[in-house]
Amino acid sequence: MVYRDGKVFFLDQTLLPEETSWVEVDSVETCRDAIRRLVVRGAPAIGTAAAFGMLVASRGAPKGSFEEYHSCMKSAEERLATARPTAVNLSWALRRVDKKILASREKPLGEIDAILEKEAIDIQKEDEEVCRAIGVNGQEIFSGARDGFTVLTHCNAGALATGKYGTALAPVYVARERGLSVKVFVDETRPLLQGSRLTAYELYKSGIDVTVITDGMAASVMAKGWIDACIVGCDRMAANGDAANKIGTYGVALLAKAHNIPFYVACPLSSVDMDTRRGSDIEIEERDPLEVAVIAGKRTVPRGVGVYNPAFDVTPHELISGVITEKKLVRAPYSDNLADL
Amino acid sequence: MVYRDGKVFFLDQTLLPEETSWVEVDSVETCRDAIRRLVVRGAPAIGTAAAFGMLVASRGAPKGSFEEYHSCMKSAEERLATARPTAVNLSWALRRVDKKILASREKPLGEIDAILEKEAIDIQKEDEEVCRAIGVNGQEIFSGARDGFTVLTHCNAGALATGKYGTALAPVYVARERGLSVKVFVDETRPLLQGSRLTAYELYKSGIDVTVITDGMAASVMAKGWIDACIVGCDRMAANGDAANKIGTYGVALLAKAHNIPFYVACPLSSVDMDTRRGSDIEIEERDPLEVAVIAGKRTVPRGVGVYNPAFDVTPHELISGVITEKKLVRAPYSDNLADL
Repeated sequence: MVYRDGKVFFLDQTLLPEETSWVEVDSVETCRDAIRRLVVRGAPAIGTAAAFGMLVASRGAPKGSFEEYHSCMKSAEERLATARPTAVNLSWALRRVDKKILASREKPLGEIDAILEKEAIDIQKEDEEVCRAIGVNGQEIFSGARDGFTVLTHCNAGALATGKYGTALAPVYVARERGLSVKVFVDETRPLLQGSRLTAYELYKSGIDVTVITDGMAASVMAKGWIDACIVGCDRMAANGDAANKIGTYGVALLAKAHNIPFYVACPLSSVDMDTRRGSDIEIEERDPLEVAVIAGKRTVPRGVGVYNPAFDVTPHELISGVITEKKLVRAPYSDNLADL
Repeated sequence: MVYRDGKVFFLDQTLLPEETSWVEVDSVETCRDAIRRLVVRGAPAIGTAAAFGMLVASRGAPKGSFEEYHSCMKSAEERLATARPTAVNLSWALRRVDKKILASREKPLGEIDAILEKEAIDIQKEDEEVCRAIGVNGQEIFSGARDGFTVLTHCNAGALATGKYGTALAPVYVARERGLSVKVFVDETRPLLQGSRLTAYELYKSGIDVTVITDGMAASVMAKGWIDACIVGCDRMAANGDAANKIGTYGVALLAKAHNIPFYVACPLSSVDMDTRRGSDIEIEERDPLEVAVIAGKRTVPRGVGVYNPAFDVTPHELISGVITEKKLVRAPYSDNLADL
């Protein structure tokens, strides 16, 4: 995501790794569509994207009276909020922008665009700082480790999903800055292949040793003793530590447990939803069956056959060895320890 | 696989479900190439394919002396035996054909083609009978079950992999004949998508309720309580009951255990290799990384990134609730109970 000369651009992640193309966000609907189509994805990134979407909305909103302006911004907020249901960062960022608008009520409306511009830039910058802090706090996982320590990750919770360092990949990047070479195995992560297309792409570009496997190979690679730890991202964490993340994450957590491999969730506090008591209360987005049935324009599931396509699953907190936040690496009991932060 | 008017045809499974195309096998190399490229696949089917390959070889072999003939057939056998390493049915069928050749030593060489033709047809027919028997013995899994009992399977161990009924799918087909509607969830089975392309195709054509999921969704579907039993095929079973099958099977077995779902392996006795003591002794075929990196002509893994692509994994016998053979449904201890058969 790039903000330059007053314009907002999203790197179109649906076209990576073969094509590097940027989408200019010039309306709320372009922003909403980009979030829906996963042009921009990853919990923290869609929060930032929504904040920039609100900036674009603000520029086009009527500024005759605060009420008129705010009502228009509320419609924009609603459009963006319903783009995707699971990641809490989306509503978190939108609430934060709305608070800023309400707090600016007494100021001249001519200043509001600049205020929201600063807010969006702040959200993006804070996200980068949060990711860096997650990377630093995640070093605990590698304590005593040597070069070749190997992490398995699922989907993409790297720089493409967030600010500079990513969440799940931040500990790997920070370790490298500090002179430790951590290797990464990444599940390709069907149906949309964020693991092979995005995680492999960004790690390879950064010179980190990365190997792609299909999702079904994770158990086999663990049984060979090749994996020292799993680190994944998080789209929403409930108050009890249950974590919604890309479909397949729950399976990885079960396989890690069966092989006595620690399983960590990297999770900025903005992804922790204290209003959601437990994982079963999290709404799981179901996406178009064609995401599974058609690959690169070619149909792989025969026409007429049913397809089930949930985008996320929930990993119960019992399977999580630690939650890496920007404050600290949190251990169980999560209900208490997350509330303390 | 069809034998008609003296000609051998393989249905090209690499092109399903979109294209139905047949490859005529007119030489040992065509047969070897078809097995290597997975035009024909599935442990029992490649045994039958090899027997028909030997028939084609025999027709072209010099018949001046038995020694000359046999030496030529031995070369053909070696070419076919090395087409793929993991499934034991390949070497089993080739050994059986060779025994037949040796037993025919005293007969006029002019009769040998007819003898091997009968042998190949017998192998195919016996495979159908074996599959039907597996289907019947597998009914034990459904005892007391009602319509809607749901099986999860991985890869394709159905009619396309074997004779008429398949192995893993045989219990489902036989249940239907007997009036019980069993539903099936099938993992798409990356990298080559035999689940979505082949299992979904054949079940749908047979009117059986089938739903495709990506491999990473299996855990989630199990957690929802939607799966009553898992049934998978087998490429080679060691004497202790450890089972090599399509990559991803071991993960399914672990997930099934975590959810208290019984996990069955359908396995003709020809796939049990009493000479292999345990699963770790089974050679696991590694295939071309491009099978993972390129889908439908489109590159999904960035160039330069490492890919690991084992074709099979081994499920330890402890995770197997029962082995469905043509003789009976075998329970632990497998070392003793398999040896008894």
